[in-house]
Amino acid sequence: MKASTAKGTRDFLPAQARRRKYIFEVIENTFKNYAYQPLETPAMENLDTLMGKYGDEGDKLLFKIINSGDFLKEVKDDELQSKDSNKILRSISEKGLRYDLTVPFARVVAMNQHNISLPFKRYQIQPVWRADRPQRGRYREFYQCDADVVGSSALYYEAELIQIYDRVFHELGIPVKILINHRAILEGIAEQVMCADRFMSMTMILDKLDKIGEEKVKEELVNLNITDENATWILNQIQKKDLSDFRFNEKAIQGSTAIEKVKNLFDHAVKYNTLEFDCSLARGLSYYTGCIFEVVPTSIKMGSLGGGGRYDNLTGVFGLHGVSGVGISFGADRIYDVMEELNLWPESLVSPMKAIIMCLDESSLDYGFNLMSELRQEGISIDMYPEAAKLKKQFKYAEDLKIEYAIFIGETERNTGIVNIKNLKSGDQQSVKRDELRKFFE
Amino acid sequence: MKASTAKGTRDFLPAQARRRKYIFEVIENTFKNYAYQPLETPAMENLDTLMGKYGDEGDKLLFKIINSGDFLKEVKDDELQSKDSNKILRSISEKGLRYDLTVPFARVVAMNQHNISLPFKRYQIQPVWRADRPQRGRYREFYQCDADVVGSSALYYEAELIQIYDRVFHELGIPVKILINHRAILEGIAEQVMCADRFMSMTMILDKLDKIGEEKVKEELVNLNITDENATWILNQIQKKDLSDFRFNEKAIQGSTAIEKVKNLFDHAVKYNTLEFDCSLARGLSYYTGCIFEVVPTSIKMGSLGGGGRYDNLTGVFGLHGVSGVGISFGADRIYDVMEELNLWPESLVSPMKAIIMCLDESSLDYGFNLMSELRQEGISIDMYPEAAKLKKQFKYAEDLKIEYAIFIGETERNTGIVNIKNLKSGDQQSVKRDELRKFFE
Repeated sequence: MKASTAKGTRDFLPAQARRRKYIFEVIENTFKNYAYQPLETPAMENLDTLMGKYGDEGDKLLFKIINSGDFLKEVKDDELQSKDSNKILRSISEKGLRYDLTVPFARVVAMNQHNISLPFKRYQIQPVWRADRPQRGRYREFYQCDADVVGSSALYYEAELIQIYDRVFHELGIPVKILINHRAILEGIAEQVMCADRFMSMTMILDKLDKIGEEKVKEELVNLNITDENATWILNQIQKKDLSDFRFNEKAIQGSTAIEKVKNLFDHAVKYNTLEFDCSLARGLSYYTGCIFEVVPTSIKMGSLGGGGRYDNLTGVFGLHGVSGVGISFGADRIYDVMEELNLWPESLVSPMKAIIMCLDESSLDYGFNLMSELRQEGISIDMYPEAAKLKKQFKYAEDLKIEYAIFIGETERNTGIVNIKNLKSGDQQSVKRDELRKFFE
Repeated sequence: MKASTAKGTRDFLPAQARRRKYIFEVIENTFKNYAYQPLETPAMENLDTLMGKYGDEGDKLLFKIINSGDFLKEVKDDELQSKDSNKILRSISEKGLRYDLTVPFARVVAMNQHNISLPFKRYQIQPVWRADRPQRGRYREFYQCDADVVGSSALYYEAELIQIYDRVFHELGIPVKILINHRAILEGIAEQVMCADRFMSMTMILDKLDKIGEEKVKEELVNLNITDENATWILNQIQKKDLSDFRFNEKAIQGSTAIEKVKNLFDHAVKYNTLEFDCSLARGLSYYTGCIFEVVPTSIKMGSLGGGGRYDNLTGVFGLHGVSGVGISFGADRIYDVMEELNLWPESLVSPMKAIIMCLDESSLDYGFNLMSELRQEGISIDMYPEAAKLKKQFKYAEDLKIEYAIFIGETERNTGIVNIKNLKSGDQQSVKRDELRKFFE
């Protein structure tokens, strides 16, 4: 049989896997530094938990798992004959793969509400699955890296989440711009032109400004039954760069409060990158109710590397009401692509192995193995070619694994206890006493 | 709706998640020290890759994913009417969840045979899924931690894998016994009593010695058409503790070679734990062909914490023949249970947060937030209660999170720049200059 991966999924071979782990490590260490706590949830959730949370389109994109055993046994004959996949689905499937980390998080908070102290700060770095049409840069399995805090409406959490973005991208070496907006500002704008009833549609349209341009956006707004004059006014408003330029009437009081909140965030400013107010930032997800964020790289043309915002009733659907929360997410795949493009990987990722032992004859293998065992005990990552093969073959192996040093062991070395070390890049050789090897590699 | 997890799956809340991460970290660091390289494969595999690799029982235990869209469209009407779940299965499902890490590894090696340098040493720590009946200690989603090397038959790899077991359990603080046997010794025994044709059945029976006792094993061997005398002889053989006690005739030459190999492994002995020859060790998995290992804890009654062995043709089914390999696996869930029972968790896992800032009045919140931001920059994991709530409430929060120190900020502290730190365990308080806080927490 011909081996292949499932459509839209990927293997990560060592070089890639190490780079991915590095990204996750930087993110996770920052989450921990900011006192977020780890949470892990199962890949499979009951379909009841997942369905209806991501819209009709989302329901379709959920991967569903067939019930075990004789799954057709309970399906009614007439149902089967109808051949209606949608109808039969819930009779033969009770579980699906998680679609994001937010809904499982909300479920966990609702289920453990009596054991969790609020505010609850959690991070979660796990894969999610979506039955999207695979295309360049879009996969059916990908990782999400989320940090959320629920149970407090304090603006300090928005501030620290911005700091987390700032810190992570600084440590990765990716210069970014952190965009910020507030849903209530957009609502205030809608209110002023009396189209609050069409707010969701309006934000969906505004969200496309970057892609389709001003003319098209205006056209679509007019199609929403907004007058030409008002559409122009809206477009003017959302392109304002200065928070002080906004004037809301008393009906849009929440808009004014939001302005103050966003202003406040600029006081606890970022340290390394730019924080920028962007009133055109809308973010598609409907559950956001407060501040919204997005991170874009500044030195390369690429979509957003992360986003997030405040939501007010995420756990409501699981019966726990009145719990406000705010969270951010990192897009690990895009971050990987940017790191790759800008060549930002640290040198240490190339080969984590310090050296390889090469034996010149059969009788040196045991000596080599014992030396290797000792050095590993000292914490040095080292390997040995397992036979006394021709040196050409051993060098080829070292080159493939990008190992920097070779330690040669032959009869002389065994007798004198002095080994020969070669830097495989520069070609430099030197003799080192066996006892001093550890020092050499420190 | 009532929130719940899918049957047989678990959430890991922060305290548990931290402990699990600790186990994975110790294992992963050791793998890296021994020059094993990371590999990650997707959760979903084509059913063609998975089916037929784990026996009929395994095929049943695979979680299968329903094809996206109108999955019944292509199913023939008469097939549907038959209501034969098994028959219809492959028409409505092309993918399944991975059942172990070994088959995906073999697939990766076969697919990338021209890019991978042999010997290829890889480790993989990922969840697997099995539709087993959930019961105590058995879950439908659990992690496997595997290290394998393919493309060499050198016995040094058996030796280093034993060392990895030795090191990991030493670092975790779990005293263990590493059992070792060789399939060829068992084969030699079967050969001597002329039942090599029933070898697999024989090993399955011997594997149960611990559970069902000598009498029953003998009975089952006799049922296998082995004479009473020979059954007794087999039982005698497999209970020999000394490798030098074995004498094979010339037909069982492989048995004699195996004895030498196992003897050899004792020369590169373990450093911290015991290595023990156990001829009754059979291990159920049929793909093992050489050395086999198993690890059992010595200070507590519990099943094996890991196992492995050498196999000769793992990648054969994917078209790549003649690649010998050897690997080990750690059972993370059982290790967790032993750590729990023996109370072996390091102190640092209790709370990774060093301190919490408690503000005595509203006006101190900004000061507190800035102080917190500074300390985080210094690498100190610290949190702040987000409002100037009653101290009782703030203390309760700190207690729930098991945080050791509280830093109080009020008007005096803001004015003097000297803060009050309380050890929440001992009750001791002291004053520390703001600038010296970093030193205090080092």
